[in-house]
Amino acid sequence: MTQDLFASSPALRFEIQAQDGNARAGVLTTRRGVIETPVFMPVGTAGTVKAIRFEELESGDLDAKIILGNTYHLWLRPGIETIKACGGLHRFIGWDRALLTDSGGFQVWSLGALRKITEEGTEFRSHVDGSMQFLSPEVSMEVQAALGSDIVMVFDECAPGNAAYEETEKSVGLTSRWARRSRMAFDRMQMNGADTGHIEAPGLSGRQALFGIIQGASHLDLRHMSLEQTVEVGFDGYAIGGLSVGEEKSVMFDVISDLAPRMPADKPRYLMGVGTPEDLVEAVANGVDMFDCVLPTRNGRTGQAFTCRGKLNIKNARWVRDQRPLDEDCRCMVCRRHTRAYLRHLYLAGEMLASILLTHHNLAFFLDTMRSVRQSIRSGDFPKFRREFTERLDANGE
Amino acid sequence: MTQDLFASSPALRFEIQAQDGNARAGVLTTRRGVIETPVFMPVGTAGTVKAIRFEELESGDLDAKIILGNTYHLWLRPGIETIKACGGLHRFIGWDRALLTDSGGFQVWSLGALRKITEEGTEFRSHVDGSMQFLSPEVSMEVQAALGSDIVMVFDECAPGNAAYEETEKSVGLTSRWARRSRMAFDRMQMNGADTGHIEAPGLSGRQALFGIIQGASHLDLRHMSLEQTVEVGFDGYAIGGLSVGEEKSVMFDVISDLAPRMPADKPRYLMGVGTPEDLVEAVANGVDMFDCVLPTRNGRTGQAFTCRGKLNIKNARWVRDQRPLDEDCRCMVCRRHTRAYLRHLYLAGEMLASILLTHHNLAFFLDTMRSVRQSIRSGDFPKFRREFTERLDANGE
Repeated sequence: MTQDLFASSPALRFEIQAQDGNARAGVLTTRRGVIETPVFMPVGTAGTVKAIRFEELESGDLDAKIILGNTYHLWLRPGIETIKACGGLHRFIGWDRALLTDSGGFQVWSLGALRKITEEGTEFRSHVDGSMQFLSPEVSMEVQAALGSDIVMVFDECAPGNAAYEETEKSVGLTSRWARRSRMAFDRMQMNGADTGHIEAPGLSGRQALFGIIQGASHLDLRHMSLEQTVEVGFDGYAIGGLSVGEEKSVMFDVISDLAPRMPADKPRYLMGVGTPEDLVEAVANGVDMFDCVLPTRNGRTGQAFTCRGKLNIKNARWVRDQRPLDEDCRCMVCRRHTRAYLRHLYLAGEMLASILLTHHNLAFFLDTMRSVRQSIRSGDFPKFRREFTERLDANGE
Repeated sequence: MTQDLFASSPALRFEIQAQDGNARAGVLTTRRGVIETPVFMPVGTAGTVKAIRFEELESGDLDAKIILGNTYHLWLRPGIETIKACGGLHRFIGWDRALLTDSGGFQVWSLGALRKITEEGTEFRSHVDGSMQFLSPEVSMEVQAALGSDIVMVFDECAPGNAAYEETEKSVGLTSRWARRSRMAFDRMQMNGADTGHIEAPGLSGRQALFGIIQGASHLDLRHMSLEQTVEVGFDGYAIGGLSVGEEKSVMFDVISDLAPRMPADKPRYLMGVGTPEDLVEAVANGVDMFDCVLPTRNGRTGQAFTCRGKLNIKNARWVRDQRPLDEDCRCMVCRRHTRAYLRHLYLAGEMLASILLTHHNLAFFLDTMRSVRQSIRSGDFPKFRREFTERLDANGE
């Protein structure tokens, strides 16, 4: 019976319900609920979206339907045996909604000199205890099965944004071979019941879903090759990796605008690790459905607020007695209750509440922006929304 | 009309509704709402109860009716002119419930070598910018009027817990003279309308209330003298100061058990800066009505949880896969959702959420304890509650 379901039902369902140019509004049905796309996923690196409680993420204010977890961080600490013993990542952290985990490839890559890449995988030094560790497609799939995330990412190799042709070509080749190994290891894990997150989900297999990642730096023909080889393996969704890693923004959008429309139209398209609110809107215009980025949380902790009039540095002396909320058009709990003067005071006094409140507002702004994006696509007003949104972002002039 | 009200209506009403031995359960009516006593007041030093949002303080989980603000800290940063320009402390921080502010006397005293005390007041070096500052009864009353807190504390001088007789006698004399000066300056401020927190409150003057502070270290006859001189000046409530400042716990309870029952029965009795949950219950047994303490918040940030079975150190390796909540008898949001294993992971990973969740639980535990205390006094079961509560605290054995 389970075997039947396994064969006949998909891990995910994705339906596009409205289209406006290349922009798409749809519904992604996962084993842990329905997600309207385009969607922004807050980043929960070490099993927590930093400075935010899960109750807030679930509240009407934010209502995040899916968050990220980081394979690399969770593997090193608390370790997979601990998370398995605690029943998988959902149960460990106390979150019932959907979880996507990255493969650890990007984190290990970003260790730079601390790692060594071979055909087999990547050897690196743990940032937690300095021990030598080894990550490969097989290990990454095993870890992500133990985490029991609802969407698993293949283990890939990232080339720098400005990587030369030959280096990138090699990297794409390795990524393709790793994608195939990821797929095989993943399928074996699913058959073995290694997935700790399995639940019954009507019309779905209840399995984890697996996404492929397209690499190729700024070289469009290599991006096309990577796309072709990745689609050939076959995945539940496809991601654009290796952007926002040091290249010019114009280069990033050259890749996105060329690549996204070529990606399978009936599968979710996920742009990894990007970006500012305006980046998100531009990428949606090119047909991207899913995003994650640390900007709203990380910048919140360093005193930067995203507002509909642009960025606002809460440390600025001009806010010392300013009675306005961070964003006069925002209806989040922070903007309903607190002034710039108070938030500035909290930040300067080193109070944790500054990080808590700025993170909350920033996430509200990102998630609200995506709500507006979806609405405007459905009502056929996306081009107008995009123009007005972008114009207004410059108004603050900070 | 205002003048009439001013003369005829009190700033506070205090009514004792049940008594069990020396323990009292009552209602303190302030211009910002009704507070059931005995009450625990979370400490909000710099205009925030550290690591907790106001929404949580207001939630059914915590439901704190009154919090503290620190005159010393707020005076130095963001400064009184800023808070005045922002409409007083309630409006500055976004909190509509009652606020009590200390006078700054204790903070300045605790600077030790950095301060110089004269008849006029205390000169000290700011911990924020190193500048020389001067605090006196008059300055403290001016600052607290600008803050607009609902309960103001007189500016006092604290002797160390183990202070010798002669030193303490001098200190008590100074405290009494400062109490008189505080009263005079306070009344002048009220007449001048300097109180930024004034609001209409049926049956009350709408003014700030002023509490006196009894000093005298461990010398009971000096405590009696201080009590007499403070009551002679006349205040809306009376506090016991200068405890939990280095003396033995038995000495502290010798003072409390002797002094509290002698304090005016028809006014609230406030034990400043004390203490553990068992300290609170013991002090209630001696007739104390109000408490504040940094323990639940400060210890929460360093990984210590208060539970009904005693303290729990979340760093302890034995919790690594422990699926139980911090306190199996607690119904707070943290205990309903998160395991010791997860909280330990958050703490070891240096995640802010560890502080947020431990602080929340600890405050819930303190506030719940006081709810149980009130209930048991009203039902005549306080001695039984006290015995069982204290016995159970030893069960954890940590």
